[in-house]
Amino acid sequence: MNERLWCFEGGRSGQFIVDSVMAARGESLPLTPRLSVTRGGSACENPAFRLKGVLSNERYVTRNERNQLTAKQQEMGRPESAQGALIPIRKSPEWWGLPQDERRQILEEQSAHIKLGLGALPQVARRLHHCRDLEQPEPFDFITWFDFSPGERPIFDDLLGVLRTTEEWQYVEREVEIRVTRDTTTGP
Amino acid sequence: MNERLWCFEGGRSGQFIVDSVMAARGESLPLTPRLSVTRGGSACENPAFRLKGVLSNERYVTRNERNQLTAKQQEMGRPESAQGALIPIRKSPEWWGLPQDERRQILEEQSAHIKLGLGALPQVARRLHHCRDLEQPEPFDFITWFDFSPGERPIFDDLLGVLRTTEEWQYVEREVEIRVTRDTTTGP
Repeated sequence: MNERLWCFEGGRSGQFIVDSVMAARGESLPLTPRLSVTRGGSACENPAFRLKGVLSNERYVTRNERNQLTAKQQEMGRPESAQGALIPIRKSPEWWGLPQDERRQILEEQSAHIKLGLGALPQVARRLHHCRDLEQPEPFDFITWFDFSPGERPIFDDLLGVLRTTEEWQYVEREVEIRVTRDTTTGP
Repeated sequence: MNERLWCFEGGRSGQFIVDSVMAARGESLPLTPRLSVTRGGSACENPAFRLKGVLSNERYVTRNERNQLTAKQQEMGRPESAQGALIPIRKSPEWWGLPQDERRQILEEQSAHIKLGLGALPQVARRLHHCRDLEQPEPFDFITWFDFSPGERPIFDDLLGVLRTTEEWQYVEREVEIRVTRDTTTGP
């Protein structure tokens, strides 16, 4: 089993009730009653969609930025974090064709992606999964999975809103926003 | 089919005659008569080993460095490039735990990895494949595939020798060096 692999499946079962599915850019994903989030591999038969991604090393964060993030960030799955959002994103070939220094420049120096994320800590917890380098071609390059308590939802909404106005988002070809609520009646 | 996926298989068939297999660090791979190199997926049944990797975006190279590389590098598979080397490498968890700026610092500012590679151009052609973020756990993080003409072999040998003395190589846990000759009697 790959401990770094996570599987996100939309279907009739799963720990999360799907509240909405919205295409922020490009094609949407099907609206399903539930979202299943599983470590190591698939948990659903015939889901309406199955997205996979792996936890990996940081691609842009510096030591100083990491220290700031580590000091403030919380683990996912806090008891009060009843709300979640799954945001798969695909960037353009133009983005992937940029050298490392220019991607970093756009991501942080121009778009303040890391700094904006830091501003939403500790209320919003986040986990980034990479899908661009899997063996089978995937429809997205990243999947980010967030959770927060219902009262902190405005912090998350503001973060999304600001990120979508940045220079970095000019390179986003497809983005879907799936909002969920944890089903507390059936366990974690 | 994943156009970015390459499969390297050691067995009884393949375009390349295996001249030697040497463990530079850690466990070796089996010595086989042939090496098969295939785009998109596996070509062999029951190979002694099968390594997969994907072409991906650059992780460290800057615009300036890329310009220098692009100006000098040659495509793989030149008619005179009868010799090849397959070098799969795994780095340590310590390496992967470093933030981006510190990995870059070690790789280039301390170890001159890009600059050393540039010094072996255009004689040595090179293609880097990533395997750390595949769905199934792989035994290596990278596979680098090189070719060159027999007369240019000393340039390649020197490159390997110097790289292995660098600070970056302190983070290499496993490295295997497979030398091959293209079988010109059976086509490309």
